[in-house]
Amino acid sequence: MQLALSTWPEVERYLQRSTAIIIPIGSTEQHGPNGLIGTDSICPTTIAAGIAEKEDVLIAPTISYGMSQHHMGFAGSVTLRPSTLIQLIIDIVGSLEKHGFTHLYFLNGHGGNIAPVTSAFSEIYADFTNDGKQAPRCRLANWWRDAAIAKLAKALYGDAEGHHATVSEVALSYYAHPEAVKQAAMNPAVAATGEFYDAADFRRKFPDGRIGSSPQLATVADGERFYQLAVETLREDFLTFIKS
Amino acid sequence: MQLALSTWPEVERYLQRSTAIIIPIGSTEQHGPNGLIGTDSICPTTIAAGIAEKEDVLIAPTISYGMSQHHMGFAGSVTLRPSTLIQLIIDIVGSLEKHGFTHLYFLNGHGGNIAPVTSAFSEIYADFTNDGKQAPRCRLANWWRDAAIAKLAKALYGDAEGHHATVSEVALSYYAHPEAVKQAAMNPAVAATGEFYDAADFRRKFPDGRIGSSPQLATVADGERFYQLAVETLREDFLTFIKS
Amino acid sequence: MQLALSTWPEVERYLQRSTAIIIPIGSTEQHGPNGLIGTDSICPTTIAAGIAEKEDVLIAPTISYGMSQHHMGFAGSVTLRPSTLIQLIIDIVGSLEKHGFTHLYFLNGHGGNIAPVTSAFSEIYADFTNDGKQAPRCRLANWWRDAAIAKLAKALYGDAEGHHATVSEVALSYYAHPEAVKQAAMNPAVAATGEFYDAADFRRKFPDGRIGSSPQLATVADGERFYQLAVETLREDFLTFIKS
Amino acid sequence: MQLALSTWPEVERYLQRSTAIIIPIGSTEQHGPNGLIGTDSICPTTIAAGIAEKEDVLIAPTISYGMSQHHMGFAGSVTLRPSTLIQLIIDIVGSLEKHGFTHLYFLNGHGGNIAPVTSAFSEIYADFTNDGKQAPRCRLANWWRDAAIAKLAKALYGDAEGHHATVSEVALSYYAHPEAVKQAAMNPAVAATGEFYDAADFRRKFPDGRIGSSPQLATVADGERFYQLAVETLREDFLTFIKS
Amino acid sequence: MQLALSTWPEVERYLQRSTAIIIPIGSTEQHGPNGLIGTDSICPTTIAAGIAEKEDVLIAPTISYGMSQHHMGFAGSVTLRPSTLIQLIIDIVGSLEKHGFTHLYFLNGHGGNIAPVTSAFSEIYADFTNDGKQAPRCRLANWWRDAAIAKLAKALYGDAEGHHATVSEVALSYYAHPEAVKQAAMNPAVAATGEFYDAADFRRKFPDGRIGSSPQLATVADGERFYQLAVETLREDFLTFIKS
Amino acid sequence: MQLALSTWPEVERYLQRSTAIIIPIGSTEQHGPNGLIGTDSICPTTIAAGIAEKEDVLIAPTISYGMSQHHMGFAGSVTLRPSTLIQLIIDIVGSLEKHGFTHLYFLNGHGGNIAPVTSAFSEIYADFTNDGKQAPRCRLANWWRDAAIAKLAKALYGDAEGHHATVSEVALSYYAHPEAVKQAAMNPAVAATGEFYDAADFRRKFPDGRIGSSPQLATVADGERFYQLAVETLREDFLTFIKS
Ligand code: NI
Ligand code: NI
Ligand code: NI
Ligand code: NI
Ligand code: NI
Ligand code: NI
Repeated sequence: MQLALSTWPEVERYLQRSTAIIIPIGSTEQHGPNGLIGTDSICPTTIAAGIAEKEDVLIAPTISYGMSQHHMGFAGSVTLRPSTLIQLIIDIVGSLEKHGFTHLYFLNGHGGNIAPVTSAFSEIYADFTNDGKQAPRCRLANWWRDAAIAKLAKALYGDAEGHHATVSEVALSYYAHPEAVKQAAMNPAVAATGEFYDAADFRRKFPDGRIGSSPQLATVADGERFYQLAVETLREDFLTFIKS
Repeated sequence: MQLALSTWPEVERYLQRSTAIIIPIGSTEQHGPNGLIGTDSICPTTIAAGIAEKEDVLIAPTISYGMSQHHMGFAGSVTLRPSTLIQLIIDIVGSLEKHGFTHLYFLNGHGGNIAPVTSAFSEIYADFTNDGKQAPRCRLANWWRDAAIAKLAKALYGDAEGHHATVSEVALSYYAHPEAVKQAAMNPAVAATGEFYDAADFRRKFPDGRIGSSPQLATVADGERFYQLAVETLREDFLTFIKS
Repeated sequence: MQLALSTWPEVERYLQRSTAIIIPIGSTEQHGPNGLIGTDSICPTTIAAGIAEKEDVLIAPTISYGMSQHHMGFAGSVTLRPSTLIQLIIDIVGSLEKHGFTHLYFLNGHGGNIAPVTSAFSEIYADFTNDGKQAPRCRLANWWRDAAIAKLAKALYGDAEGHHATVSEVALSYYAHPEAVKQAAMNPAVAATGEFYDAADFRRKFPDGRIGSSPQLATVADGERFYQLAVETLREDFLTFIKS
Repeated sequence: MQLALSTWPEVERYLQRSTAIIIPIGSTEQHGPNGLIGTDSICPTTIAAGIAEKEDVLIAPTISYGMSQHHMGFAGSVTLRPSTLIQLIIDIVGSLEKHGFTHLYFLNGHGGNIAPVTSAFSEIYADFTNDGKQAPRCRLANWWRDAAIAKLAKALYGDAEGHHATVSEVALSYYAHPEAVKQAAMNPAVAATGEFYDAADFRRKFPDGRIGSSPQLATVADGERFYQLAVETLREDFLTFIKS
Repeated sequence: MQLALSTWPEVERYLQRSTAIIIPIGSTEQHGPNGLIGTDSICPTTIAAGIAEKEDVLIAPTISYGMSQHHMGFAGSVTLRPSTLIQLIIDIVGSLEKHGFTHLYFLNGHGGNIAPVTSAFSEIYADFTNDGKQAPRCRLANWWRDAAIAKLAKALYGDAEGHHATVSEVALSYYAHPEAVKQAAMNPAVAATGEFYDAADFRRKFPDGRIGSSPQLATVADGERFYQLAVETLREDFLTFIKS
Repeated sequence: MQLALSTWPEVERYLQRSTAIIIPIGSTEQHGPNGLIGTDSICPTTIAAGIAEKEDVLIAPTISYGMSQHHMGFAGSVTLRPSTLIQLIIDIVGSLEKHGFTHLYFLNGHGGNIAPVTSAFSEIYADFTNDGKQAPRCRLANWWRDAAIAKLAKALYGDAEGHHATVSEVALSYYAHPEAVKQAAMNPAVAATGEFYDAADFRRKFPDGRIGSSPQLATVADGERFYQLAVETLREDFLTFIKS
């Protein structure tokens, strides 16, 4: 059940059955020579839709812009400052809480969101505690960090899975958008890996945007495998969460 | 050309051809008994996609959450505080400017966004001026206020077009999402109209969420007419803008 | 009854009779070759004083600084960032509400204030709603947009009324401050008109600060006509407001 | 020379002669049974006008709202949060600096403004230093703390001058606005004195708003003496400042 | 009783006996050729520990970073923006209030903190008042401004005590950290004095960081005298405060 | 070399030799029945001092207050909002960068700081990138997550090491402050473990403040082992960092 495609009386009835909601959150940032700039938003959006096919759960519109400052050296990347993202999360959580939602499951596609969104949860909890009110429960679920997902990626690609513009995320985005599959030469085949600090440093060390990955391996077929596994495993995580 | 479905080298090449971008912006808020909560986001998203079919123009991911405080009396509505929305716009504009975009066309579906987004533009211009730099040009285009659109709505529905959950926007959203067409009894047929101030006042005066409208008149076929007209008229507005 | 010239026991007694207040708000910005930098503050201040002569209504001190970023290319203009003006309005409204004021009528002299002040009202309503409290009613009345005022300006000056440094506002400021009437050659007689974006663009297109106007037509006598009409028409608007 | 009554070409010419400006700043807060709510704004506004009669100096519009949280227990008092006042000062200083003003003399009428305005100056200096630019020089001159003023008050009223709603400030405001002279019984004749912390504590300890003063002693004639002395002594202070 | 060296059950028991707490606050900034960068933190930390030897009072961890923008021309100085320091104080006060602390005694070692901390208190009081709650009582005690301390410094050093990097504070820091006593040639023996505005102006006028002082006179023995006097006199001030 | 015990000329000379600095950061929060409220600050402060004995490295004053909202159910805990902590880090980093520091090593003792401090680094990098400047390199090193430390804790205590108020951190704090070793009965011997969300939930699930640990096992002797290991292993991490 998509919030964007529902009416308010439908949401009112949903709230009689459940006070949980899934909010996909991603980013708009470079994903290497053949990865889509929307990869991190497309993946959780797609997984959430899959969960909603199996469960009676409401899916909020995707937060498509995230914290991507380290990708700003590549055309088309957009970043929110962490402090802006924190305020955005605070407002969305506050609004949903007003209607009676108690369990907010943020299905995340982007590592750079973890610190600001976690900070936002703390700020929200602090504010509710401060006002003597019970905060809604918030959970940030990072789909690609799920053990089963990581295992499948390892089995399929070994170290070529990489750390940014990974094969698995590119494959999943291709499954969701087969019309957008891209071809691009990459050299070296497996990108370099390592630490970085700011956007200039990132661009210097990873000139085509990949970290440690070979996303030319990504296929729609593999994407479907990640999709089905992610729907299954994150659905279980969600069901566990709403019982907490 | 959708930014979310492009790679960064594709954006780099686009920037050789054009430094303009369209950013759809909407809201997540009640639209009466049969209107979709995503109406205000769906409409500009759909129109932007239509423009992109005719012009070589880049479309950014839709900003799906807007300033909707007056709708908070209805389940499922989400609002950003104006100050949050201002920061969000500042960050998106700032990011795009870094890559060389000079003309940012915000295609808006929601009246409540006008004041904060206009404020954000002023804050951006002030900051750039203050730093001795040239600001990117920003335009907020409100599709439903276009003269041709308003004329068509008037011709089709007269006063029953209304002011919120209007027939035209519901029709356009139905055209975009025929799978989500809803039926709902409405009484009175044409909703009351008038001024309001806060969310409680809104709910009191407009108990089913409509202001002055009869969205039960909305059809997919009418939606298509609005779609085609809006693509045409806003495309022209965009082309004029990028020449400024 | 001027708040600045009252004692607190007098205000306490006033609150027994009425919980409405008028707050003039303007700007400090260039108004062309012969217009006063304080024009936008002087006009609503003067009109408010005129209303107070006819009604038992409290007038707060004028907010003399507004959002004027686009005028920063001209010496003496001062601008608040929109986010600052929003906080300023929030604090003033919050303070007045504490004393029991329920109807806050902002009598505005400057178009650039509309977006931030409207944003502030939304933020205030959102905050009160969020705290489960009833917000005070706020209204932003833009004197120059009143239909009767616009009609008189049209009748007197036709298109030479213009859009910034208009004949009507300069005339009204001259009526209020006949000691400050200025003479200045203007070329062309009627200034150019058009859209602009930032301060540099404004200065480039409108090198003497006027947009579409011929403020050399302004006279004290005309100013008195605008004054009397504005007092009458805005007084009615105010009386309607306090009944809402 | 009043900024509000000048045109931008006049300011441009002034800047050829001088880059100094006086900005009166006050508050809107209770001043006891017979003191005006605008006292703290009226006093520096009046003194500044007096200085401008003797010196070729530009006077900006008065900042009429200040930091008055401790007076919020009395009807009609308005307070800005310190953080709002800081932002307001930052914006005004930043705007004036853009036009070339180098010496900003804030002529202050209210003790509660000292901490936030001083904080604002530090924030401004820090920001300019951080950007590698030279900050404009800012000075906060508190008229009532001038040694000559304090001496005259002591000579005229001894301890009955008091600490809030002082005889001298009420007298000066009466001189400026003889039409607003008020009569009020006060008991005890000299108000209690002591420390306080928040608004409730203030109201409890000083139930009529006065601290240690007998403002029933205030006369227009005394006000004129304070006026003339303040114009003289603050003019000198200003002249010293602009040489720094 | 040091908060950092206590357990939460010990604090819970303390709150049965007392709801007062001392929070030392200083800075990290240059203190001339032989003064320690931590001088302003070391002094109140040391005095607080001395008070705690004589009274059953809880001492919070020292706030070691303060508002020091004017010292930024000297290596090793760190400054918080006033607005950051205000938020820091708000959070610390808010946290302590939640546990039942009612009297918060900030023992201050740095003049630059006075404006922002005073502003923070006002903001806290305003917020509590606004929420209809009683604020905790906050006091900022500036140890070096105590009359007895100033008198001793005058007796020992006359005018060579100075205004920054004073002999008394350097002496007290040496008493606390005899292992860190430094020797440095200073020329002139007594530093220049005068007003300053920003960091560059400070460095220009006071090239070695001192204002009006001869800190080469500082000795551990003198430091002990200041220590014992400060413990006595501030202990009394604290005891008076907690009775308010 | 402690910054607090240095003079500015000493820092100036240090900057000739090195542009790296270590900034310990902790928290002020409950650590169970026998753990010190300052544990998270004491540990990194102590380790940093140990590193400074072996390397010529400057140690900044400890940031003693952190993000501890989930501990607010226990007396004496103090929390900064994440947004405050972010601003604090921004200011400290910005100040140090001004003096030429290029490598800022935050030695962290508290898990709750990770998200806000990481967010702050991103905001800093974004701001510098935005201004076209090279950001200083920032690293957050969490001493207790070091592999060697975790291995030692596992070897000594197995699962009784726990997740909050761990044996290792309590032991290290005891080594640093043997005068503050506490005895407390704990039941059960090994505390419960599990997830939590806000402060009330934490207190409900972990009524004495421990998560999964048996801190009654902590001894000064064990603390010394952790100290020596941590100094060695974090020193190496620091040396690697400054070469990046
Ligand atoms: Ni990704
Ligand atoms: Ni709509
Ligand atoms: Ni105007
Ligand atoms: Ni006063
Ligand atoms: Ni000092
Ligand atoms: Ni810990």
